[in-house]
Amino acid sequence: MIRAGVIGCGYWGPNIIRNFHYVDNIEVISVCDKNEKPLKEITRTYPSLKTFTDYREVTTAKDIDAVAIITPVNTHYEIAKSALENGKHIFVEKPFTATVREAEELIALADKKNLKIMVDHTFLFTGAVRKIKELVDANELGELYYYDSTRVNLGLFQYDVNVIWDLAPHDFSIMDHIITAEPIGVSAHGIAHFKKECEDLAYVTVYFEENLIAHFNFNWLSPVKIRKTLMGGKNKMLVWDDIEADEKIKVYDKGVNIESREGLYDLLVEYRSGDMFSPRVDHKEALRLEVETFSDYIVNGGDIINDGQAGLRVVKLLEACGASLKNNGKYIKLK
Amino acid sequence: MIRAGVIGCGYWGPNIIRNFHYVDNIEVISVCDKNEKPLKEITRTYPSLKTFTDYREVTTAKDIDAVAIITPVNTHYEIAKSALENGKHIFVEKPFTATVREAEELIALADKKNLKIMVDHTFLFTGAVRKIKELVDANELGELYYYDSTRVNLGLFQYDVNVIWDLAPHDFSIMDHIITAEPIGVSAHGIAHFKKECEDLAYVTVYFEENLIAHFNFNWLSPVKIRKTLMGGKNKMLVWDDIEADEKIKVYDKGVNIESREGLYDLLVEYRSGDMFSPRVDHKEALRLEVETFSDYIVNGGDIINDGQAGLRVVKLLEACGASLKNNGKYIKLK
Amino acid sequence: MIRAGVIGCGYWGPNIIRNFHYVDNIEVISVCDKNEKPLKEITRTYPSLKTFTDYREVTTAKDIDAVAIITPVNTHYEIAKSALENGKHIFVEKPFTATVREAEELIALADKKNLKIMVDHTFLFTGAVRKIKELVDANELGELYYYDSTRVNLGLFQYDVNVIWDLAPHDFSIMDHIITAEPIGVSAHGIAHFKKECEDLAYVTVYFEENLIAHFNFNWLSPVKIRKTLMGGKNKMLVWDDIEADEKIKVYDKGVNIESREGLYDLLVEYRSGDMFSPRVDHKEALRLEVETFSDYIVNGGDIINDGQAGLRVVKLLEACGASLKNNGKYIKLK
Amino acid sequence: MIRAGVIGCGYWGPNIIRNFHYVDNIEVISVCDKNEKPLKEITRTYPSLKTFTDYREVTTAKDIDAVAIITPVNTHYEIAKSALENGKHIFVEKPFTATVREAEELIALADKKNLKIMVDHTFLFTGAVRKIKELVDANELGELYYYDSTRVNLGLFQYDVNVIWDLAPHDFSIMDHIITAEPIGVSAHGIAHFKKECEDLAYVTVYFEENLIAHFNFNWLSPVKIRKTLMGGKNKMLVWDDIEADEKIKVYDKGVNIESREGLYDLLVEYRSGDMFSPRVDHKEALRLEVETFSDYIVNGGDIINDGQAGLRVVKLLEACGASLKNNGKYIKLK
Repeated sequence: MIRAGVIGCGYWGPNIIRNFHYVDNIEVISVCDKNEKPLKEITRTYPSLKTFTDYREVTTAKDIDAVAIITPVNTHYEIAKSALENGKHIFVEKPFTATVREAEELIALADKKNLKIMVDHTFLFTGAVRKIKELVDANELGELYYYDSTRVNLGLFQYDVNVIWDLAPHDFSIMDHIITAEPIGVSAHGIAHFKKECEDLAYVTVYFEENLIAHFNFNWLSPVKIRKTLMGGKNKMLVWDDIEADEKIKVYDKGVNIESREGLYDLLVEYRSGDMFSPRVDHKEALRLEVETFSDYIVNGGDIINDGQAGLRVVKLLEACGASLKNNGKYIKLK
Repeated sequence: MIRAGVIGCGYWGPNIIRNFHYVDNIEVISVCDKNEKPLKEITRTYPSLKTFTDYREVTTAKDIDAVAIITPVNTHYEIAKSALENGKHIFVEKPFTATVREAEELIALADKKNLKIMVDHTFLFTGAVRKIKELVDANELGELYYYDSTRVNLGLFQYDVNVIWDLAPHDFSIMDHIITAEPIGVSAHGIAHFKKECEDLAYVTVYFEENLIAHFNFNWLSPVKIRKTLMGGKNKMLVWDDIEADEKIKVYDKGVNIESREGLYDLLVEYRSGDMFSPRVDHKEALRLEVETFSDYIVNGGDIINDGQAGLRVVKLLEACGASLKNNGKYIKLK
Repeated sequence: MIRAGVIGCGYWGPNIIRNFHYVDNIEVISVCDKNEKPLKEITRTYPSLKTFTDYREVTTAKDIDAVAIITPVNTHYEIAKSALENGKHIFVEKPFTATVREAEELIALADKKNLKIMVDHTFLFTGAVRKIKELVDANELGELYYYDSTRVNLGLFQYDVNVIWDLAPHDFSIMDHIITAEPIGVSAHGIAHFKKECEDLAYVTVYFEENLIAHFNFNWLSPVKIRKTLMGGKNKMLVWDDIEADEKIKVYDKGVNIESREGLYDLLVEYRSGDMFSPRVDHKEALRLEVETFSDYIVNGGDIINDGQAGLRVVKLLEACGASLKNNGKYIKLK
Repeated sequence: MIRAGVIGCGYWGPNIIRNFHYVDNIEVISVCDKNEKPLKEITRTYPSLKTFTDYREVTTAKDIDAVAIITPVNTHYEIAKSALENGKHIFVEKPFTATVREAEELIALADKKNLKIMVDHTFLFTGAVRKIKELVDANELGELYYYDSTRVNLGLFQYDVNVIWDLAPHDFSIMDHIITAEPIGVSAHGIAHFKKECEDLAYVTVYFEENLIAHFNFNWLSPVKIRKTLMGGKNKMLVWDDIEADEKIKVYDKGVNIESREGLYDLLVEYRSGDMFSPRVDHKEALRLEVETFSDYIVNGGDIINDGQAGLRVVKLLEACGASLKNNGKYIKLK
């Protein structure tokens, strides 16, 4: 039995606790928050939990094997480091850390101590993303041409991060999971209407060595909620609309057949317009599956899709976006 | 009665001819195309038209007052110049010209000769754009925060232009019409999958001096057709979905009330979520209204919204996009 | 403080208990179910609840003031009667009773004992129905022409009732609430594919004395979920789409202006096509508001929209549907 | 070469003429309308057409082999009879005739004279209906449970027919084509708000001997346009949404598996929720295909899907609806 402590009891923390409860191998023992109020709330439902307001009471506790860190990103490094130093496995809310350097240091520390890191890239465990990954891995789409994602709504302003640090960890972790090609450069454009350097909408382009491009539209000021990703491939194209209750994924047997011959104008273009197919998507709660995976990862080891390295790759993209944003979208090399 | 000649009888030319026919003050006399086939087609419907395969027969004809140039963009300058030099008013398919220099030269020539130029920014005459312009001019949205447009579908490949030159003239002319602020810089990202330097998808960001940003998503490789523009303002937000048969425009009484006080974290954020309103949009054919305006412009003068200067402003943006595209989205200053 | 007992802990019961908990004036003391399992589940969350498997332990308990009856409809009468006879107010799951006679008897009994009956027509307390009622009462639509509702999906088969008894209580209670005119006749068509006399889809027409008609499409075998109601009036028309997350209600300034003159063919028909308006809908949980109303009703009396009489009117329609169904849709007079 | 005359030049007539023009084997020679105005219009496009205002000039003309009758339904019989008596094949706008008796008489007359009748059930030639027919014939859906169609919008009032005679010919002809089972009874409910006995909305139920039901919702007073048909089968379910530009047809691998054992309550119900499939639908103009079929039918004979018998079956349903409407939806036996 893995004895876990949860640090951070805001919006997401209670979901973590609820799901830890459902998993056989994990038992939540302690819970911590800077404020008393959420602790009171949570013990109404789970009266046996020990509560603390100082995270060190959890990260250093003898009866704790793993710590879930569900706090603002700028606190991740300090708490995670303390947990690892005291021999605890960690489950860290996304984004993993506030800087690349922090992430690298935590990974090295965990390696040294033989501890596990899981970054909470929950979306990777949704039925939709699992199905898309399955389709892409089976080469259903063929060679990928582009990945184009829109994630906009009337958003909750974050006080410590801009719209990219708020929304992009979802999309970057998904892109990182689905696309095996490596990004080589990033460009980000944005604007801050209300608070300096706190962009409330932003546009990110990711370049790859292959003939592939990714683009992201993030916006906290949209009157309508859009969660739509288009992926174009040589054989088929895919639209993932996460707002749809059913038919989240549609695969189109549409495309362009182009034969390139010699000469500039000597292209033979043919359009294909075929059937559309919308695969059934599993409805199992993503967080449940993720937490089960965390438990299994601690006990049995192996590889997971959202380890520290995955977290680091996302933070690298976020950091590069920041550098680009400050320079009118300057191209930032990733490698 | 204005006697007109139409040069170019491809996809769009016959629509011009049909609409010229309906306007009282204009009579189409001549029509020209490099190929005989479309000329034969058109005279089946309009047997009295004179047909030519050399455009000079139209631009130099004594019985012609105005010339409509509905040919590929790289031919506009040559034909337009010939028409103006021979004292004809011109109606030019968008984009106005292939370069800024060409546009400036044609405008100067027309001014000198006291001739009129209209650029075929048809969209400005649609019920939807007229309604949006009316709402924005009445300050319904309040101070503008952003303009965000997506225009994607499985597109017809153009052999001489990339996706920006193909699709952006629509959106740039609309943005130019609706937003009175002046753009100061442009950045464009894109990728060409099939033909070198012929981007089939591209993302454009336009910066303004004011606290305003515009963004455009152009894509010839999308399995679904999207024609959606979001505009966020301080008071209200607007969504224009041109695919919708009815309810093309929705105005949301949604927004963010933010009081900025001193200190970095001292913001008071309040969300507003109110009613939505979808104004009736006039269904009159845009091209009809445009052609009537052209006739009136020639006869009575005055100002129009799609004169040579408007055409030039769009070409400036297009040219800047090209420069940016070649440099991984480098920021190109406009002024 | 009203001390309440809840009988029936299946799908809906726990929602009742949760909402009773949130209302200041009500305290749930006892809970009853035929099966031990749901009782165990519920006491995990609410450990202080007394549990019973025999409903009489609740209906006859001295420490109980009000009983919520959340059991299958064929048991309502027996349990409700016992509760009323023992001086308890009752909150009864819809449909109120299995027959008109039962409903009338319970109402008479409550009147005699000076006890309150509330029938759980939850939908009446949703933001959408409250807004529609407000619009209709303000005569926004003008004289009503029709009420047309579709409620279909891949449904849960009920073992004791057909699709009309399952789904129609929602729509009949809403129609009864919104339309003040009285129905005079009913016709119902249906078909049972799997179990004799258990129709899995059905169509109901309700006639009114006024020039008004209502129609309902109920279906347990639809691959898609539709919850759509159209209401046409002389001035405006309304569409309520309950599947929509936002924009549930749309009011169209569309209609037909008809001047009837003499002679059969002497009609002057003019169509109006104006703006559309989608009012903001309150998101407060309907059941919360309903339970608060129940508490207030017991304490302060007055009139409520879902009393025993409202329950009876719905049962009358259901009973008439049954008679019609058995006779190929024969018209059944209601008065 | 079949020499054709077209009688009736209102809304639909010019489409017939245009399509006749495209078919190699047919030549339109004469056109007739009671009014001079549409005749003038049509000869502007087709100057060689002979024009008449008396239909007899067409039905009795020696140079005419086939007559298209595109006039109001109450004139079909008289004109068709005259055409057949004079040895002309006929193409008759739907509905075929105003009464069953008329249809039977025309069929008998054509048989006697060895002439062909085609009724203009255009919808049968659309890509959507052809695809649905193909799927149903291939038993994709399995045993059919129901056919449920909604055809509503803000409609054009007809002066001579009610909403059923206006809209139902579409749906009845489609149902008749797709479902091989024979209808045994009809019930229709409706209401007339503006002109006596001219129902502006109506609901029709069709009963079959098999365990199958069909239902139709017709409405001229809907603020929104809906053209949606649901078909439920034992294996799969289908939704046809004719408003959709793409994805008109969706086939759902959803259903109910029910094992009926002994006893009333002894059903084992299992729901299936699988993939969805949206087949590509051919976009060829339906009327073109229909007119080609007419030409082929005259020349080569054989069987067609919209002969006089098909027209008669639709008229039988329409007539039965009328009888039912007058009696509050009384069940009218068809056989």
